[in-house]
Amino acid sequence: MTDEIDATFSVSFTHRLRFARGIFDDGSSVLDDLFSDASPPRVLAFIDGGLAAADKDILARIARWANAHDVPLAADPTTVTGGEAAKADLAVVKQVVEAIEAGKLCRRSCVLAVGGGAMLDAVGLAASLSHRGVQLLRMPSTTLSQCDSGVGVKNGINRFAKKNFIGVFDPPMAVVNDLDLLDTLDDRHWRSGLSEAVKVSLVKDASLFEQLEADAAALVARDTAVMERVIRRSAQLHLDHIVDGGDPFERTEARPLDFGHWSAHKLEQVTGCDLTHGEAVSVGLAIDVEGSVELDLLERGDADRILALLSALGLPTTHPALRDVDVLYEGVEEFREHLGGALTLLLLQGVGSPVEVHELDVQTVRRAIERLV
Amino acid sequence: MTDEIDATFSVSFTHRLRFARGIFDDGSSVLDDLFSDASPPRVLAFIDGGLAAADKDILARIARWANAHDVPLAADPTTVTGGEAAKADLAVVKQVVEAIEAGKLCRRSCVLAVGGGAMLDAVGLAASLSHRGVQLLRMPSTTLSQCDSGVGVKNGINRFAKKNFIGVFDPPMAVVNDLDLLDTLDDRHWRSGLSEAVKVSLVKDASLFEQLEADAAALVARDTAVMERVIRRSAQLHLDHIVDGGDPFERTEARPLDFGHWSAHKLEQVTGCDLTHGEAVSVGLAIDVEGSVELDLLERGDADRILALLSALGLPTTHPALRDVDVLYEGVEEFREHLGGALTLLLLQGVGSPVEVHELDVQTVRRAIERLV
Repeated sequence: MTDEIDATFSVSFTHRLRFARGIFDDGSSVLDDLFSDASPPRVLAFIDGGLAAADKDILARIARWANAHDVPLAADPTTVTGGEAAKADLAVVKQVVEAIEAGKLCRRSCVLAVGGGAMLDAVGLAASLSHRGVQLLRMPSTTLSQCDSGVGVKNGINRFAKKNFIGVFDPPMAVVNDLDLLDTLDDRHWRSGLSEAVKVSLVKDASLFEQLEADAAALVARDTAVMERVIRRSAQLHLDHIVDGGDPFERTEARPLDFGHWSAHKLEQVTGCDLTHGEAVSVGLAIDVEGSVELDLLERGDADRILALLSALGLPTTHPALRDVDVLYEGVEEFREHLGGALTLLLLQGVGSPVEVHELDVQTVRRAIERLV
Repeated sequence: MTDEIDATFSVSFTHRLRFARGIFDDGSSVLDDLFSDASPPRVLAFIDGGLAAADKDILARIARWANAHDVPLAADPTTVTGGEAAKADLAVVKQVVEAIEAGKLCRRSCVLAVGGGAMLDAVGLAASLSHRGVQLLRMPSTTLSQCDSGVGVKNGINRFAKKNFIGVFDPPMAVVNDLDLLDTLDDRHWRSGLSEAVKVSLVKDASLFEQLEADAAALVARDTAVMERVIRRSAQLHLDHIVDGGDPFERTEARPLDFGHWSAHKLEQVTGCDLTHGEAVSVGLAIDVEGSVELDLLERGDADRILALLSALGLPTTHPALRDVDVLYEGVEEFREHLGGALTLLLLQGVGSPVEVHELDVQTVRRAIERLV
């Protein structure tokens, strides 16, 4: 008889990412193909309230499409609260869990979630928790979620005024980026997600950074072909990090895709709904770029180039809330606590060239911010 | 540019199972060894209220042990509601999540949960949800949880009167079976968990079944050495199924460890707290054994032998609630819905020899029950 048993096992996941247009048009077969592999016995569709307000036909269009494509909807498509309010409390999670139960969805059934990143996080958490996980098909409807969060393997809601305090890692059955959905965005939200594209370019791909510089004017002018190229590259880099980065469920302390996010999360917390997540990330990038200069990691010229790109994309690099450095600096410890273990932050030593640091003192942050306010 | 990206990745888990006695005695180093591998920055201990009532020194003992062993407790050990009430609503989950936040636990920190299976399920869900998972060290305190559920990779609470409607798959950092904890159990709960040992013997290991037959009197007489042998074998079979069964997160429709559970879960629902989970499983085994005979899968002699073992272990094989067959039969569909896809139940063609069926009609269940009531 042994007193100690250590046994290792693995669970494999397939990350499916699709790019398309007009998913709910009659002729589209993108979802049919995904559903024919997964054969969900029942499907429930949830639509971001913001999206449904901007695209008044979308609920009816999904219902018509489901009918024409023999997709077994368990109930009529339903709107849920969108934006950060979706993850501010349990309301959306509860609404979706109750609909899953009422609709008799089983684990093989599928929740189809169409909306922005916050709404996808809350609906995704409800799907992950019901029957220990019904399938989830995510359709991000914003530049930000198509570039970044929608492609990830996590979900969650805020609690104790802390971003994503409650959540799980749980890869969706598929992520479908329908580029036509971006037409519903106002200019501010259209641009807002580009901060995540800048972020991933800074830590992963200098050529994407150069592409963003060259295309900034076209992006601001809403050139959809250019935006599509940026989203495809950004989403691919995000997916590659999950699949090939060796740490899809974030067990180590390094989290390169969270570059600039320690202050972004804190800024969102202290400013309420004043900044979009993308705008907060833009300010957070600016802070960590200046911090990198303060620590003699990054040259002034590179920093100026990065700040210039953010500005050219119509993204903020400062905010009145930066003046309270001590409150903002609490974000460092909250970031460490959420991640666990020793503090590990990414800073920059060049465009596309990150470096890990394990300390970031308040004086450095203060000096970095002084250059921005 | 490709429109379809399919990329596969794996996440590996290590299942650590320990058998020991007197874990919180000064001389024990079992947890020290686990903690030195994991080095949790902070530890929070939660104790089943039922256990703390039976072992009045346990909170103080854990505090003394932590102090002597340099275990960084974030707060004094705390009791939480035990028994099925722990998973009847969100109260325990909320209590633990709030303590995790107040105690500033990070992902690398550890929740130490000591108690019965229901309490471990609720505390484990709170740990899984906080920061997308702080570490969990499970110490099952009942024969049932040491044999069976404590060794598993899932957690959850009940909702909509459905067992485990809300939960996730999330392997704990370790499971430590302290056999001394069983001394706190009354005779009914001491015996109750043996139904899960009978279950796993029926679907996995005829030799364990024979051992249980030979040892039934000693088990009922509370021979701890014999119980230890049963728990070790049962827990090992459970772990082997997770590690080697090829489906640790239950993605296929087959779930052999849930033999007898479709009716057990329904019985618990309709009888309230009248039956322990172990007793409900015993009745559920009896129903599926008789059902196997009705379908000409199992010989009468084998069925009688199984029913005789359950009786010899002091476990029930009937209950007044069985008379309402139609209500009980709803458990088949609820079981299918929780699992997803096509109905897949295990029945028996012999001791240690299971067979999958995809249909179980109400008449068969009715005839099976007629032999039991």
